[in-house]
Amino acid sequence: MQTSTAQTGTRPTRTQVAIIGAGPAGLLLGRLLERRGIDTVILERRSPDYVLSRIRAGVIEPGAVELLEKAGVAERLHKEGLIHDGTELMFDGDRLRIDFAALTGRSVTVYGQTEVTRDLMDARADSGAVSIYEAEDVSLHDFETDRPKVRYVQDGVTHEIACDVIAGCDGFHGVARASLPDSALKTFERVYPFGWLGILTDRPPVAEELIYAHHARGFALCSMRSPTRSRYYVQVASDERVEDWSDDRFWDELRQRLDPETAERLQTGPSIEKSIAPLRSFVAEPLRFGRLFLAGDAAHIVPPTGAKGLNLAASDVGYLADALLEFFLDRSSAGLDAYSARALARIWKAERFSWWMTSLLHVFPETDTFGRRIQRAEFDYLAGSPAAQRVLAENYVGLPM
Amino acid sequence: MQTSTAQTGTRPTRTQVAIIGAGPAGLLLGRLLERRGIDTVILERRSPDYVLSRIRAGVIEPGAVELLEKAGVAERLHKEGLIHDGTELMFDGDRLRIDFAALTGRSVTVYGQTEVTRDLMDARADSGAVSIYEAEDVSLHDFETDRPKVRYVQDGVTHEIACDVIAGCDGFHGVARASLPDSALKTFERVYPFGWLGILTDRPPVAEELIYAHHARGFALCSMRSPTRSRYYVQVASDERVEDWSDDRFWDELRQRLDPETAERLQTGPSIEKSIAPLRSFVAEPLRFGRLFLAGDAAHIVPPTGAKGLNLAASDVGYLADALLEFFLDRSSAGLDAYSARALARIWKAERFSWWMTSLLHVFPETDTFGRRIQRAEFDYLAGSPAAQRVLAENYVGLPM
Repeated sequence: MQTSTAQTGTRPTRTQVAIIGAGPAGLLLGRLLERRGIDTVILERRSPDYVLSRIRAGVIEPGAVELLEKAGVAERLHKEGLIHDGTELMFDGDRLRIDFAALTGRSVTVYGQTEVTRDLMDARADSGAVSIYEAEDVSLHDFETDRPKVRYVQDGVTHEIACDVIAGCDGFHGVARASLPDSALKTFERVYPFGWLGILTDRPPVAEELIYAHHARGFALCSMRSPTRSRYYVQVASDERVEDWSDDRFWDELRQRLDPETAERLQTGPSIEKSIAPLRSFVAEPLRFGRLFLAGDAAHIVPPTGAKGLNLAASDVGYLADALLEFFLDRSSAGLDAYSARALARIWKAERFSWWMTSLLHVFPETDTFGRRIQRAEFDYLAGSPAAQRVLAENYVGLPM
Repeated sequence: MQTSTAQTGTRPTRTQVAIIGAGPAGLLLGRLLERRGIDTVILERRSPDYVLSRIRAGVIEPGAVELLEKAGVAERLHKEGLIHDGTELMFDGDRLRIDFAALTGRSVTVYGQTEVTRDLMDARADSGAVSIYEAEDVSLHDFETDRPKVRYVQDGVTHEIACDVIAGCDGFHGVARASLPDSALKTFERVYPFGWLGILTDRPPVAEELIYAHHARGFALCSMRSPTRSRYYVQVASDERVEDWSDDRFWDELRQRLDPETAERLQTGPSIEKSIAPLRSFVAEPLRFGRLFLAGDAAHIVPPTGAKGLNLAASDVGYLADALLEFFLDRSSAGLDAYSARALARIWKAERFSWWMTSLLHVFPETDTFGRRIQRAEFDYLAGSPAAQRVLAENYVGLPM
């Protein structure tokens, strides 16, 4: 990773696109631009190792795979990624397979977000493009003009980079969205009254495909990272503490939420990671402020149900890369002018799907008995309707970009 | 209607099926049974004219049309009913046609529930089957045994009819469900915080198909009874009083909720009926208690969005008639044993659809800005997805019986 930090070369004082954040959104944007000759600098507050230690989603839509191919970083994904032609839903032990391949002609790829990030980091390091890690006190300036600047502090010294465009790819808690006055943004939010307690374990997954389970005790998800590494989740109340969940307690709870046959087959082992993630839906509008553009989690959050977070970041970046190439190579602002509306149209549909799938599969403390029956009716309707299954499948594999 | 009352003949003291309620559910059940030689008596608290004065739904699923054909009462429906191959959705003025015929190969028939009731009443009167109108203080007895009885009072005299089976088709406020101890029933309910203010007017409808409109001011529906008689609705708060709504105020409000082109085309006229109906979802389970069976509104209510009330009553009655024919003609209780589960499976799917369509199209006072955007995203997703349109269409024309 040495070549990916600024310490080895000359500190840049000017670039075409200053990208804030070295997560998959920022790295993918950088790569899509760099391959077409656009100069970028990535500023990241954390170290490469810290970025890579974040455990995130692992289900990648075919449209996002195409973008990774375009970025020249899909080789290992194609070698190690698991193709999933479907997924299983479970409702109080009743099972329903959704056959993506038969319903839509497309499949998803299971490949950890961490691996995507690593592949992008390695490609960027090889390209010699500049990434400045552990950049402190990043600040954005003059993006309402044609001459924006970003400043950061490293080793106690303040540095400034002049640029044409700033891309805010620095996540929900990042500086990019926070640089905007409240009056510039409309925000939309739903905080769910529960979280996901997740375990990573070096045991083979209980099934070849993911299992999304609704149970009266709460939601559970059987997922995986590889044929030998599994990822499991159970819905827990918002105020649960991870310290209160021994591995044994986790496995006991998970088993109760699955059908007996699956519970029996479950191979448990010591957790190599265990954490609780809150669930939130969030959208900030618009995505453009002069020469500052937001993409990915900086602008929107989805609950993990349906695995849309990384995929939505990828489609944002796909739109933004096209718009920036048009701007720099064709001298046209049309793409940049259209970016916010174009990306938001797809974002809201993914927000809708993630909200719907979360609503179907979780137990909401405030839901009355009528609401519980509606959840069950939705599952039963899905089970009997190819059209309803196609709706789920086409959203899961990703709506058109 | 003289022949349909008991006053002209001998008062029956015994029948095979005592049907409580002479709405479309009870009348259709009677007709389906009578045509196969099963003896029925219908007891109705109100007069025939009162029953016919109730303004209700007017969109009939092809499955319900088939049942009316089976009952031999579809001749006028086929002559006067309007075939609708689709419907229009509108969201803040944007329009989307759902093409039932192209999406499902089926269409719905617009024909007032009042007309269905009249056709059924006339057929019953011609058949000589006994209907006792203005039967007071109807009570149900011994339905936990093989010898149930119904009693009623007329002209101050109490009469009793012995029977094999009682069919409770007497609506939400009827005596049939009320005869059961609370402990025998599980009930599920959602009361919506608004109602529909409806107007009937002798003017041609604004469009050939129904228009379901979501608007920031609230839901509106442009419907019809015939090419010269229109039915319009606007969502109003639960505490609105019909006296506060002059015709002019109604038309002004309706116009504001439509797109300018439709508002311009609207032909207004004096109201010949004007009322506010509350919106409610309700299901009671099970539908069978010994020899008492519930069907239609006696067991479940849907909000009118999606026009499922009459159609669901028809499918209940279709199941119940089949089960009763099996019972009387084949001496098998299998159909009666299966009735409750079979009917409820379809009921819950229709409850889900009605709830969903209500949720999409109305303004809920408690909905936050995120929820409003999700409604819009649902409309936009529908507009772009043939699969989602098919889901709406297959529910609207009616799921398989």
